[in-house]
Amino acid sequence: MNKKISIGIVGYGNLGKGAEKAVLQNLDMELIAIFSRRALKDTQNGVPVVNIAKIAEYQGKVDVMLLCGGSATDLGKQGPEIAGMFNTVDSFDTHEKITEYYQSVDEAARRSGNLAAVSVGWDPGLFSLYRGLGSLVLPQGTTYTFWKGVSLGHSNAICQIEGVKYAIQYTIPRKESIHAVRDGGTPALHAGDAHWRDCYVVADEGADLARIEQQIKTMPNYFAEYETKVHFISEEDFHAKHMEMPHGGLVFCSYEPSPGEKNIIEFSLKLDKNPEFTAFVLTACARAVFRMAMKGEVGAITILDIPLGHLSAEEPAELRKRLL
Amino acid sequence: MNKKISIGIVGYGNLGKGAEKAVLQNLDMELIAIFSRRALKDTQNGVPVVNIAKIAEYQGKVDVMLLCGGSATDLGKQGPEIAGMFNTVDSFDTHEKITEYYQSVDEAARRSGNLAAVSVGWDPGLFSLYRGLGSLVLPQGTTYTFWKGVSLGHSNAICQIEGVKYAIQYTIPRKESIHAVRDGGTPALHAGDAHWRDCYVVADEGADLARIEQQIKTMPNYFAEYETKVHFISEEDFHAKHMEMPHGGLVFCSYEPSPGEKNIIEFSLKLDKNPEFTAFVLTACARAVFRMAMKGEVGAITILDIPLGHLSAEEPAELRKRLL
Repeated sequence: MNKKISIGIVGYGNLGKGAEKAVLQNLDMELIAIFSRRALKDTQNGVPVVNIAKIAEYQGKVDVMLLCGGSATDLGKQGPEIAGMFNTVDSFDTHEKITEYYQSVDEAARRSGNLAAVSVGWDPGLFSLYRGLGSLVLPQGTTYTFWKGVSLGHSNAICQIEGVKYAIQYTIPRKESIHAVRDGGTPALHAGDAHWRDCYVVADEGADLARIEQQIKTMPNYFAEYETKVHFISEEDFHAKHMEMPHGGLVFCSYEPSPGEKNIIEFSLKLDKNPEFTAFVLTACARAVFRMAMKGEVGAITILDIPLGHLSAEEPAELRKRLL
Repeated sequence: MNKKISIGIVGYGNLGKGAEKAVLQNLDMELIAIFSRRALKDTQNGVPVVNIAKIAEYQGKVDVMLLCGGSATDLGKQGPEIAGMFNTVDSFDTHEKITEYYQSVDEAARRSGNLAAVSVGWDPGLFSLYRGLGSLVLPQGTTYTFWKGVSLGHSNAICQIEGVKYAIQYTIPRKESIHAVRDGGTPALHAGDAHWRDCYVVADEGADLARIEQQIKTMPNYFAEYETKVHFISEEDFHAKHMEMPHGGLVFCSYEPSPGEKNIIEFSLKLDKNPEFTAFVLTACARAVFRMAMKGEVGAITILDIPLGHLSAEEPAELRKRLL
């Protein structure tokens, strides 16, 4: 048996906890430590929790670090810093800032000779490939994507607002836009035309609700461009009704193999729990990063640069036999 | 502008004709010639048709050959032969023989220093990745795939039988199996449990229908393992009712992030015309083969080895911006 891939996890929120479960299910991996700013005891599974200030001491002991902090607050700084010391994988998900983030991580990783997979969670990440299906192979196709479900990035962004205890955000497609596309139309849909955003917030006692609502609705990149509804609910209601994280997508890609002959590809996906699945994707990408780094690749990469066979622990010949 | 990628097409049936359309829509490609056993005039688009006996003369003039012959008859011999002279892309689709085919093409391509992407059409091919979604990232997931629609490979296999003029085969999921899986079951489904095969055949005048039906139903790998119905219909009916080629798939992947907690991913896809889309996939893979061959890669590869960003003519930075 080959040496196991040594993994570290940075951050121990929802995503970090999911990553712990995922790494423990991958028998070719070994979870060395979880790095956190908070002083936590070792995890239920006996994984040591180490203060993040000591992360540099783990160089040479960890093959790949899974960065599980939030895009809005942690990753902008952590991504390049840690890629300067380790191979990394992250799920940076502020679509509008990916170019800038990619560049800063790319520079840090090249300087240090590491390989860093950025924005490789579920979305952006693996789902980007799935909804990119048509546009990757159809030079003259038109693609529309509708999301339905919880966005972890948007939920976390609300949680950063002072006075917010818990928050969850559902992204919901606008029905009239789906109908227009399914009927063969190619309308120009801007961000806010295709979806609206539904937010459920538990506020701290005595918090200024009007200010919180205003801060959510005007947050650039996340909410300002969308119709956004904000509902304040009790902690009991939150735990009773909003603990599931369904996530789905509906993609239409239309193309004309011959002039005037229109074909539509319709593609839908339903996923029960988004953050846990994202953690599995990050973990599989860590395997790909490890293999590609062993071959000498350095710098930043995305899911577009990863041969998907590298995600799996299966032998290539077995994988071909099973999947093709 | 970079030099255009020079493409040749081998075979001029449904798939070859689709490939011609697809190549002409990819503005970074140039279609040099179509190679056929039949004596044909130049195509409507002015592409020269060359006798396949002269294909060796095109070494140095064609960067990638798209092999558009049938798996049942042509590719077993053509695949390795042509990979001994050119970089190639094919959509070999006899699932049971892919390992053997891969090896023969791999040897030929390595000997000649070429790169050959095998079985990279739609299914097996790009759709293999999509339905492999769960199993690539979930080490302990269980995946079920149901297909619904026309199988070009099975239709072509029927057409090889003496006395058959036209034929089309629809693969249809067994409803009871879909229900069992959606309800959270993990039944052991063998090939014939999940699908049955519905065949519509136009026979030559005076042909022995009983023999044709028998030959279809006993054809190994293609039909023998399945419940198969054969309907003989008139040429008029065939052209009126069976010229569309809808193709879809339904994939379920269940996994347990924590013991006892079951998540199901449900994924569906509808595609209007399978052979035309397959032709677009083959063509996009030719671009990936060209780029990977330029980097010095040789031998056989499959869609599992291709970073999907290579399929697109877009600049990597643009692609990241658009898809992530």
